[in-house]
Amino acid sequence: MKVRVHVSLKPGVLDPQGRAIHHSLEGLGFAGVNDVRAGRLIELDVADSVTDAALDEMCRKLLANMVIENYRVEKVAA
Amino acid sequence: MKVRVHVSLKPGVLDPQGRAIHHSLEGLGFAGVNDVRAGRLIELDVADSVTDAALDEMCRKLLANMVIENYRVEKVAA
Repeated sequence: MKVRVHVSLKPGVLDPQGRAIHHSLEGLGFAGVNDVRAGRLIELDVADSVTDAALDEMCRKLLANMVIENYRVEKVAA
Repeated sequence: MKVRVHVSLKPGVLDPQGRAIHHSLEGLGFAGVNDVRAGRLIELDVADSVTDAALDEMCRKLLANMVIENYRVEKVAA
């Protein structure tokens, strides 16, 4: 089973990487960009026996920093 | 308009970050994880006037390294 975990900073948390990307896009001449936020994408290939609760626990224990980040688990049809 | 850009390493490209995550998940006792790949998620808030071609160019010029990475642009309903 393929699982994608999207990890993004919570709203209000300062995102210097996103600001740097935003600044660079403007420097390259791209107009119309209002905001950029940078996050992580973690693609897991797990056994079908792995439960949603286990995936949630992986995110909370390792993949995301729950103090400043949100995560979203997306199962991908194989 | 909200746009998510998913950037992931091409198949076959060595992914030390993914391997470290995989190793850590096993160390934490999670079973059934076959493979982990780490990528980036970039969330853009752009004006509605920004075209698909412009988004593609942003990815190719800045957001993804086309030599080793693939990208996917996903528009999110506001």
